[in-house]
Amino acid sequence: MALIVQKFGGTSVGSTDRIQNVANRVIQEVEQGNQVVVVVSAMGKTTDELVKLAGEITSNPNSREMDMLLTTGEQITISLLTMSLQERGYKATSYTGWQAGIQTEHRHGNARIQHIDTQKIHQQLKEQNIVVVAGFQGVSEDGSITTLGRGGSDTTAVALAAALNAAKCDIYTDVTGVFTTDPRYVKEARKLHSISYDEMLELANLGAGVLHPRAVEFAKNYHVPLEVRSSLEIENGTIVEEEVSMEQNLVVRGIAFEDNISRVTIEGLNNELQTLSTIFTALAKEHVNVDIIIQNVTSNNHLSISFSIKAQDVDMTLDILKQYKDTLGYERIEHESNLAKVSIVGSGMISNPGVAAGMFEVLAAEEVEVKMVSTSEIKVSTVVPQPDMVKAVEVLHAAFELEAQPVQQV
Amino acid sequence: MALIVQKFGGTSVGSTDRIQNVANRVIQEVEQGNQVVVVVSAMGKTTDELVKLAGEITSNPNSREMDMLLTTGEQITISLLTMSLQERGYKATSYTGWQAGIQTEHRHGNARIQHIDTQKIHQQLKEQNIVVVAGFQGVSEDGSITTLGRGGSDTTAVALAAALNAAKCDIYTDVTGVFTTDPRYVKEARKLHSISYDEMLELANLGAGVLHPRAVEFAKNYHVPLEVRSSLEIENGTIVEEEVSMEQNLVVRGIAFEDNISRVTIEGLNNELQTLSTIFTALAKEHVNVDIIIQNVTSNNHLSISFSIKAQDVDMTLDILKQYKDTLGYERIEHESNLAKVSIVGSGMISNPGVAAGMFEVLAAEEVEVKMVSTSEIKVSTVVPQPDMVKAVEVLHAAFELEAQPVQQV
Repeated sequence: MALIVQKFGGTSVGSTDRIQNVANRVIQEVEQGNQVVVVVSAMGKTTDELVKLAGEITSNPNSREMDMLLTTGEQITISLLTMSLQERGYKATSYTGWQAGIQTEHRHGNARIQHIDTQKIHQQLKEQNIVVVAGFQGVSEDGSITTLGRGGSDTTAVALAAALNAAKCDIYTDVTGVFTTDPRYVKEARKLHSISYDEMLELANLGAGVLHPRAVEFAKNYHVPLEVRSSLEIENGTIVEEEVSMEQNLVVRGIAFEDNISRVTIEGLNNELQTLSTIFTALAKEHVNVDIIIQNVTSNNHLSISFSIKAQDVDMTLDILKQYKDTLGYERIEHESNLAKVSIVGSGMISNPGVAAGMFEVLAAEEVEVKMVSTSEIKVSTVVPQPDMVKAVEVLHAAFELEAQPVQQV
Repeated sequence: MALIVQKFGGTSVGSTDRIQNVANRVIQEVEQGNQVVVVVSAMGKTTDELVKLAGEITSNPNSREMDMLLTTGEQITISLLTMSLQERGYKATSYTGWQAGIQTEHRHGNARIQHIDTQKIHQQLKEQNIVVVAGFQGVSEDGSITTLGRGGSDTTAVALAAALNAAKCDIYTDVTGVFTTDPRYVKEARKLHSISYDEMLELANLGAGVLHPRAVEFAKNYHVPLEVRSSLEIENGTIVEEEVSMEQNLVVRGIAFEDNISRVTIEGLNNELQTLSTIFTALAKEHVNVDIIIQNVTSNNHLSISFSIKAQDVDMTLDILKQYKDTLGYERIEHESNLAKVSIVGSGMISNPGVAAGMFEVLAAEEVEVKMVSTSEIKVSTVVPQPDMVKAVEVLHAAFELEAQPVQQV
């Protein structure tokens, strides 16, 4: 008998029919002799509807009250799923975040979990109950309801799995697993049997979108094995774990990409200690999300800085930089839009120094111009013209032999 | 500076526009220098929608899970009302039942309040906050969310007023107060300045509908002055209090009535100790609500019992009685539908023995046949043919001079 944590997102519980389907998936696990804790999100459009109600009252809602409002969404789902399990003759109990003992810091909209008091859940499991927990929410020390921010239900599931010392945490989603790249663009894309936490982290941060990076980090820190799998189709998903020994021979595990990127270049900056922090603090204050940053010192001790942002943030970025013209003393600003980011990810890169070079070679052979480069130990990101994005992904996918089944399988 | 508890029902908070209106009513009280605790129900149709969702899952939902589901309704309202108060520049905080310290017995769907820990509310009031509390809900000792059953938000408001030692509890509703009888039927109906708890209890139980009997009982036991008033119109309502000295000269305070009543008569029963309890336990088990019961022993030591029920329960009642024919050994059952109940209520009756006789005389003069009679210390109820109901109310309203303004006013 193993203890399994299952997590079902908003699409998987989008209607009462889908909730019935989720109940069936939970019961399958129970029928295999496992103890199950289920974490669920709010039903499909519930959150949007609640946000709309708040919008009718105020354009600037208090964050404590937004948490109070939004957490009703998961509370509805847990009660309905529990009823569905009971209707099928299974013992089940629902818990909100505070009932499940999920203690967070005292902060609204984006609180971190500090501690989980698992006593009540353990008691319920001991009494043969399926425990259904509201994702995304917790309670602060002063008894206020808090939320965990984006990807919060993934985080709830992984944190519960860690606290309960679960055998694994299954993340049910609307895709069947983690792919070598997006199968909607590249037909050779292949579902991975497994992937390491670090690789998943890079892919998640790069917008692969199936799993929230925070949850992956949590899983990595607490050694919780994850499986990303489909809530609709019955097949094995992708296992996210510490070491992917069986596929270690693969240098590159996957390719992530993202369109609508812009590059902004500031030339002729004074080379002062404060320059970098002045620029990026000003942008952060206005919630401009800066991705790749490249800095260069030219011969006359002048600084040149390029960075990539989302295309929609270009106007605001230029406005902000103009406001700081006197402070920064730059010569000119240039910007280029219609770009895309293409990244290769794989923990095998650490011991294979030529991987980045190989990537540039493949792109050059296809006449894809590389505008920016950023590297980490297990990732190489390039910024390329947007019209070349899919071609770049395809040739890289082929060059790094990602469509091939690995020789050794799990 | 006084502490006021205000309660707004589902119609008063039925839309975000109405919630804005409620915020204005709360602010008026605050601007008069008062501390305010507001209790709200779920928005208009929210509860129905939630019940519908549960109905799509199961026809027999678990009561703990129904409480989990339904309590999201008030949680939505408290957050929206609090945002609305904040938007207008007032400090406010929302509390669910468990956050407000409302401890109930461990029972779902119809729990009684056992204790209110007012520490947090007192602290918030001290910090000049308006406190917005979810009605209808509490928490049991084991940390489960419970609901208080029908009229639960009224009960929350009165219980909070008692626990906080509030100066008064204002119940805002869609009528402007308590009337001598239903103004939709009798145009001479007059709004009462005040009424005693006991009179209000009789009227509430008789279906006057503005205030839940449980809340009135609570108010009576803890000496909480209530005012029933309109959430839409700005005018004084009706005060419910211990003693109504100024209007003590009025023997009859109001007239309540209810249509679609049926009478069932069982004749020739064996006169045994168990007979009554057998009949009414069987009916209660099937949730048949029996109102007036009349028992008579005939000359040959045979028992005859008549009782009134709602017309819709007649078929089920006759079925149940048939099942018990052998046990009860009765001769025959008769039933009559198309009846109505008309009741006069007034605490002055206790010291005025002729009131019931006066009522019968008035009805006889109008040729209204009285089918059943039931009396308490402050009430006389009659069952009459339904076609005569409104006429009976009108003539009684005139005979007991209810349309007249009392000589002394508050």
